Amino acid sequence: MSADVREDALLDGRVRLRQPAAGYRAAVDPVLLAAAVPARAGERVLDLGCGVGPAALCLLARMPGAWAAGLEIQAELAALARENAALNGRADALGIAVGDVGRPPFRAGAFDHVMANPPYQRAGHGRAPADAVANVEGVAKLPDWLAAMAALVRPRGSVSVVHRADRLDEVMRGLPASLGEVTVIPLWPGPGTAAKRVIVRARRGVRTPASLTAGLVLHAADGRYTPAAEAVLRGGEALSV
Amino acid sequence: MSADVREDALLDGRVRLRQPAAGYRAAVDPVLLAAAVPARAGERVLDLGCGVGPAALCLLARMPGAWAAGLEIQAELAALARENAALNGRADALGIAVGDVGRPPFRAGAFDHVMANPPYQRAGHGRAPADAVANVEGVAKLPDWLAAMAALVRPRGSVSVVHRADRLDEVMRGLPASLGEVTVIPLWPGPGTAAKRVIVRARRGVRTPASLTAGLVLHAADGRYTPAAEAVLRGGEALSV
Repeated sequence: MSADVREDALLDGRVRLRQPAAGYRAAVDPVLLAAAVPARAGERVLDLGCGVGPAALCLLARMPGAWAAGLEIQAELAALARENAALNGRADALGIAVGDVGRPPFRAGAFDHVMANPPYQRAGHGRAPADAVANVEGVAKLPDWLAAMAALVRPRGSVSVVHRADRLDEVMRGLPASLGEVTVIPLWPGPGTAAKRVIVRARRGVRTPASLTAGLVLHAADGRYTPAAEAVLRGGEALSV
Repeated sequence: MSADVREDALLDGRVRLRQPAAGYRAAVDPVLLAAAVPARAGERVLDLGCGVGPAALCLLARMPGAWAAGLEIQAELAALARENAALNGRADALGIAVGDVGRPPFRAGAFDHVMANPPYQRAGHGRAPADAVANVEGVAKLPDWLAAMAALVRPRGSVSVVHRADRLDEVMRGLPASLGEVTVIPLWPGPGTAAKRVIVRARRGVRTPASLTAGLVLHAADGRYTPAAEAVLRGGEALSV
């Protein structure tokens, strides 16, 4: 392991994740994202902007019979994602491509499900430290991510995105018209608090009404994970809220 | 009182409301809507599609120094709204106009705040009984309502809409680009349930990030209103979630 790479564990150790020791590191958000994707065995799942692969690997841990692909613009992160696939014994099921979200190297409708944990910061906004560059939008802005997701998923397939709750309006406003059955899943830091993150899931070409679910309360009043959060983050269960 | 009109009480009796005995009747939704509008004394508030006036009268009950206008396309409901203004001693502060949301008789930017409880049903959808016609969209569709709200509010003023949570996607997607500081306030029927209603509030020409608030849990596990719901629905307090 090179000096600037550390290894973390997700899903109570079921997923090992090598990632850069400095800068943006995958935490709970990709784990929750993967838990919200309704993938079944045999289905193909794209992790758009996969980084070092946490969401894809968590999804494969829960659904070993699925197939996953990742697209990552930063070659060094893509290389770590490939390492991580091998490290978890899933090089057979996870392929990583280097490329731009705005010009994905996949054909339209190629995936049963597309998930993404896009950069949280707009370029030029906020005070993101220089080493957090991986979490700042590049040329592809949030609407471009959403358009790519809708284009790459098959009809009736799902797209899922996790984002900052304070950008919920942009996510919703940017959803291509082809997406329906919009499900908003708030991620509450604690009981009675405003959401900090939100997962928005939708399906292509499906006109089912929207839903605003009860969401997931991450921490109890004592600061520990709630049982529901534990079930997903450590138990590896699907997010069923 | 004519045979087909009944009188109901809102805000623990502080608002008396005459409304048609048959068909759609105002319930808690306009009360919650009015509680979400950040109006101050001296400000002008428009209730778009005001029906018999429940939201406007609740707002005036909480903020007696505000001024309210209502726009209602059905002349018989507008007449009842005028009766209700007088019945509550607020004919001085509430003016009712008959007209179409698509062609409102007000100048652009005339109001500090605009609120609406638009028809919940799309025309031709669902199985709305014939006597619930007041709650079915007419010529003006949801995006037309939202466009009218954005046009009629002054810069930095607020718009607030209460709607079915299963149409949250349409509300968010239909928000004119001039609206920012989008606040999504879920109305939960009970703890741990999906939302049935949602209030979306936004401000014109303001770019503050969005928020997804904890919202209001209406009923406790025993079926009674929660203290927080009581404070708004009976106590007449502002919705502060």
